[in-house]
Amino acid sequence: MSDPAFLTPFLEKAANLLGPRGLTTDAGLMEAWLTDWRGRYTGSAIAMAAPASTEEVAALMKLAAAYRVPIVPQGGNSGMAGGATPDATGTALLLSMRRMDRIRSLDPDAGQVVCEAGVILQHLHDAAETARMRFPLTLGGKGSATIGGLVSTNAGGTQVLRHGTMRAQVLGLEAVLATGEVLDTLTPLKKDNRGFDLKQLLIGSEGTLGIVTAATLRLLPAATGRVTAWAGLPSITAARSLLRHVERDMGEALEGFEVVPAHCLDSVLAHLPAARAPLGGRHEWNALVECVSASADSTALYERLEASLAGALDEALLEDAVIAANERQAEDFWLLRDSISAAERALGPAMQHDISVPVERMPEFILAASPLIEEAFPGTRAVAFGHLGDGNVHFHVLAPPGAVPGTWEEAEGKAVSARVYDLVTQWGGSISAEHGIGQMKVAELARLHDPVALALMTSIKQALDPHGLLNPGKLVIPDPAAACT
Amino acid sequence: MSDPAFLTPFLEKAANLLGPRGLTTDAGLMEAWLTDWRGRYTGSAIAMAAPASTEEVAALMKLAAAYRVPIVPQGGNSGMAGGATPDATGTALLLSMRRMDRIRSLDPDAGQVVCEAGVILQHLHDAAETARMRFPLTLGGKGSATIGGLVSTNAGGTQVLRHGTMRAQVLGLEAVLATGEVLDTLTPLKKDNRGFDLKQLLIGSEGTLGIVTAATLRLLPAATGRVTAWAGLPSITAARSLLRHVERDMGEALEGFEVVPAHCLDSVLAHLPAARAPLGGRHEWNALVECVSASADSTALYERLEASLAGALDEALLEDAVIAANERQAEDFWLLRDSISAAERALGPAMQHDISVPVERMPEFILAASPLIEEAFPGTRAVAFGHLGDGNVHFHVLAPPGAVPGTWEEAEGKAVSARVYDLVTQWGGSISAEHGIGQMKVAELARLHDPVALALMTSIKQALDPHGLLNPGKLVIPDPAAACT
Repeated sequence: MSDPAFLTPFLEKAANLLGPRGLTTDAGLMEAWLTDWRGRYTGSAIAMAAPASTEEVAALMKLAAAYRVPIVPQGGNSGMAGGATPDATGTALLLSMRRMDRIRSLDPDAGQVVCEAGVILQHLHDAAETARMRFPLTLGGKGSATIGGLVSTNAGGTQVLRHGTMRAQVLGLEAVLATGEVLDTLTPLKKDNRGFDLKQLLIGSEGTLGIVTAATLRLLPAATGRVTAWAGLPSITAARSLLRHVERDMGEALEGFEVVPAHCLDSVLAHLPAARAPLGGRHEWNALVECVSASADSTALYERLEASLAGALDEALLEDAVIAANERQAEDFWLLRDSISAAERALGPAMQHDISVPVERMPEFILAASPLIEEAFPGTRAVAFGHLGDGNVHFHVLAPPGAVPGTWEEAEGKAVSARVYDLVTQWGGSISAEHGIGQMKVAELARLHDPVALALMTSIKQALDPHGLLNPGKLVIPDPAAACT
Repeated sequence: MSDPAFLTPFLEKAANLLGPRGLTTDAGLMEAWLTDWRGRYTGSAIAMAAPASTEEVAALMKLAAAYRVPIVPQGGNSGMAGGATPDATGTALLLSMRRMDRIRSLDPDAGQVVCEAGVILQHLHDAAETARMRFPLTLGGKGSATIGGLVSTNAGGTQVLRHGTMRAQVLGLEAVLATGEVLDTLTPLKKDNRGFDLKQLLIGSEGTLGIVTAATLRLLPAATGRVTAWAGLPSITAARSLLRHVERDMGEALEGFEVVPAHCLDSVLAHLPAARAPLGGRHEWNALVECVSASADSTALYERLEASLAGALDEALLEDAVIAANERQAEDFWLLRDSISAAERALGPAMQHDISVPVERMPEFILAASPLIEEAFPGTRAVAFGHLGDGNVHFHVLAPPGAVPGTWEEAEGKAVSARVYDLVTQWGGSISAEHGIGQMKVAELARLHDPVALALMTSIKQALDPHGLLNPGKLVIPDPAAACT
């Protein structure tokens, strides 16, 4: 922990290092960045630094190490687990990476782009598009999420089925370590067997092992064809079979496969007065299927998907289906999917869980878990939807009618979440599919995660950050008994 | 280091634990496994253990930890860098994983197979084929290489361009740690953000952080179409452009792209009397192109590749090309490629280097490095060929005519290799593309690798294996000064 007597000389040296644009202690300027965007966590900081270069980050980290000042790195402050919010002690320095927002290079021929940590995802999409390429990862927060944050949390999104999470997009990495040294693996090598994969260790480590300052990311040729369909299904088990069926027919063109239960669609249609159901009749489950290609055009994709869905109809894997006739209709389909959270929120208090189970067990889990929760907590309603292709379930539990917003979440809501995490652990799944651990799930991780894996993480944290200066209180808590310095 | 006084009780306890089939001190039985298959390294061991289960490996590791006996894990003993051969002190236990050769489960629908460490790659290929699937990684040593060894060395092969190295095939892992604890991540989750990726840390760590006992691997649908072409090219720069051109036209069907210079082909044709050149005329460079699909048939692939190569001819990216008319002709093409090493060896002593550079710099590197080596070591001839799509260069330097085999390699040969590794490091490349570090390159890694990365690796090794019991002397040497226990 920082000794207050050190703070003044530390801040003076940091101010000299970073200049007037690079450091502030102004409470008004810092305020917006000390609360996470969902408003769940509020912290305090001795100052907010905004370095302009990797060299400045490295020098600042050296200074922080000398004065034992903890560092909380922050990108767009749009994380879902409080991972970029300092604690309330006010001893940490908030490190904004937003000034480092340069795209250092973009090479369409090599399919590579080198982004600094503060580049906003939408800006990367725009730059890729200008070069007739695309970056194959996107998510709701693209207008604020930064590359550094996306790398540090191993972000997911709706294209993971085909393209993988952020882990799969990162070809090279630059990071400042707890010592202030710079690990530079920005030059991508497709084959490199010189020992441990340090890059993969840093990805998803939520700033607890190093501060990501830049990344080399892969780019793909821009899509030339896209087709989107909505299917009505008799059951979640049929959805799983339909996924396999379409995968077989469409190969690597299959990019999205989202499932929506009937009552979710009902809530959305009630919530969006202008929206209408894509299909006539009510179907227990719905699937949103999207195929994208960089070599075939939309007409060719349409014909292939049409044939595939006709085959699925013959095999009774679906009851009805419609392929979007144009971009507008495709967007309408996606709007239904993307409005579920808002529609559920409008129904009253709810606990939302970002969990995953093995892909092939997902239908079984959804069928089993929902009644268990509803029985254990009478009056609640469990709603599961999400990325069937990834085993990623968005598992929402709605409070009983009449529950008091704000109160229910803190009392019964917490017990509901603990029970959901118990269940998903029993099923061999993960209590965090996409959003990470941050400060929100750090206690649950300690309670439920494999003790062998936890001990390994603690050892690595201890080895790489023995003084616990990198994003303290997040993800992994060092074991003071294990420290040897 | 083991204290000899401890050895007798250690061996007694190990014998009790593993039974008569599980432990031997018979020099005759051990001999074949104490020398690497290329005959470069010979070591000694107190005994050879061959446990039959993960539980036995874990119990043995606990025992070894208590007695401070180092462990050298070994699979098929077909590694290229001496990584599975103990040192000459005779203090280590050789741990053969070959008895753990069960395929625990194979699920074609989920595209997953769980293999124990001792499963031989060819057996996995056979099992996958029986289930109408395929495992998308293969290499020359498939008849002896085991899954545990392939995972521990992050093996590559000829399909990396499309499917990636072993790192990309591993969905889950089971490993015994230095404490004797079992890390079990066998259940694959497509999305899991519960902290550091321990699985990826263990892959490619060459047994220095843990002993891989089983892995969950991905399977793909069996190929329905395959087409192979041979093209004659004016230059290595044209080869690079041709690669981009075919990638654009064939998309993810492009699976192999190997380049062969004219003088390599000459050597092969001289070495294989029955072989003939695929094309009339002499071309400075040749490319072997293979496309594979699990949805299109061979006829459709043939037509697409034919059109693509015709377009490349129009753009002068190639001078001539032929597509194999049948499987037999495709095999003939591959035989030419696969015989280069044997043909070069027949020409006399040579130093072979498994190196990589950034994909887009590979033509430039080949053009620049060969004359530099030939000038620095008069009379030598530098031959570069390999996987252009991966930046992986097989860089062979042939001794001057009349050099004495066995003597030249130890004297000038070593200087040649040091110079090659200097060059590849200057070019931002890797001194080990595929084969790992083992004991062969451990000094060169220490000399040339980024000190920041090396220090990180040492810290991690120290944290996970503080007594240096896991495969000592390989890949990463712990720093005694950093030990705190």
